[in-house]
Amino acid sequence: MPQGQVASVPTDGLTTRQRRNRPLLVVHTGAMKGKSTAAFGTALRGWNQGWSIAVFQFVKSAKWKVGEEEAFRALGTVHEQTGQGGPVEWHKMGSGWSWSRRSGTEADHAADAAEGWAEIRRRISAGAHDLYVLDEFTYPLKWGWIDVDEVVATLADRPGHQHVIVTGRDAPPALVEAADLVMETTKIKHPMDAGQKGQRGIEW
Amino acid sequence: MPQGQVASVPTDGLTTRQRRNRPLLVVHTGAMKGKSTAAFGTALRGWNQGWSIAVFQFVKSAKWKVGEEEAFRALGTVHEQTGQGGPVEWHKMGSGWSWSRRSGTEADHAADAAEGWAEIRRRISAGAHDLYVLDEFTYPLKWGWIDVDEVVATLADRPGHQHVIVTGRDAPPALVEAADLVMETTKIKHPMDAGQKGQRGIEW
Repeated sequence: MPQGQVASVPTDGLTTRQRRNRPLLVVHTGAMKGKSTAAFGTALRGWNQGWSIAVFQFVKSAKWKVGEEEAFRALGTVHEQTGQGGPVEWHKMGSGWSWSRRSGTEADHAADAAEGWAEIRRRISAGAHDLYVLDEFTYPLKWGWIDVDEVVATLADRPGHQHVIVTGRDAPPALVEAADLVMETTKIKHPMDAGQKGQRGIEW
Repeated sequence: MPQGQVASVPTDGLTTRQRRNRPLLVVHTGAMKGKSTAAFGTALRGWNQGWSIAVFQFVKSAKWKVGEEEAFRALGTVHEQTGQGGPVEWHKMGSGWSWSRRSGTEADHAADAAEGWAEIRRRISAGAHDLYVLDEFTYPLKWGWIDVDEVVATLADRPGHQHVIVTGRDAPPALVEAADLVMETTKIKHPMDAGQKGQRGIEW
């Protein structure tokens, strides 16, 4: 990949060093798979920098994306045991977050999602982590379970130097507007078009 | 992410199980970053399945993408020490592959690239690994250092159940044609457009 080239020099009064260290809000959206995958790939680099990584997955099933989860949990253990890389936390909505005291057997994904965001907001305000991966977070925004404007305001005001990556289809315009970097994945060709089923190690 | 839906049922006479286990040739191309990152994210899932992972990076500098390399080397060590996940090999062209006996101080990237492909071809013929990431491999193809038709023929004839992911801009049409899955990354917005420099942990 060629080195990044700067198209214009901004007039924001920041030094190159200050700009280099600006925390980023990144959105991975689009119709194709690869959004979450690319976010976790980015998190590998953060881990290697010694960053505190926190993943929050807004997924309905605890069985999704277990491959990445297991790999990152292993990297978190490497950090604990050898000091290499950074610490890793991995939280999954599934049928309720692990920290949640909300009981009852009836699934309430809207309440779960709101509770997840409340926890993330607390951590962001406290400057708890260096990189947040909010995986599939566009869906509760799209469905109105979490207020987009409140999310954008919270992210805009986040203290310190915290990077945030949001993944999911149909990212709301206000989130895209607020983002520093937006990547869209486009499907050119996919084996499911030819009737192939998803497979272990590739899809999960 | 919604469950994958099959658009049509193929008439290839294979059972669902056979189709599910078909080895894939995947191409990540397009103008935006995220191609390699998504490939390494996919490799995390393969690692968790216990696959033998081999990465070959066709990059000119040994300093590129060191974050992912360190993380995967750590996962390889986890496998060696605990048996979790799969083994990992990571090879980088840089100023010559580690196994190369070619000497001399003059850089010859074309010869290095051809040598890298020769080694990959030997391994594929031997069924050495479960997942190959051929990172930035489109460039030596584009520049004519490696013959595209020979690559496509080798990949088409590969024995056993070996997955291959190729990344890089401007994937040659013959490679795209041969691929089972092609993902293109598109830039919507990038901080370098606003004059921001790349930064540690995000870009490398």
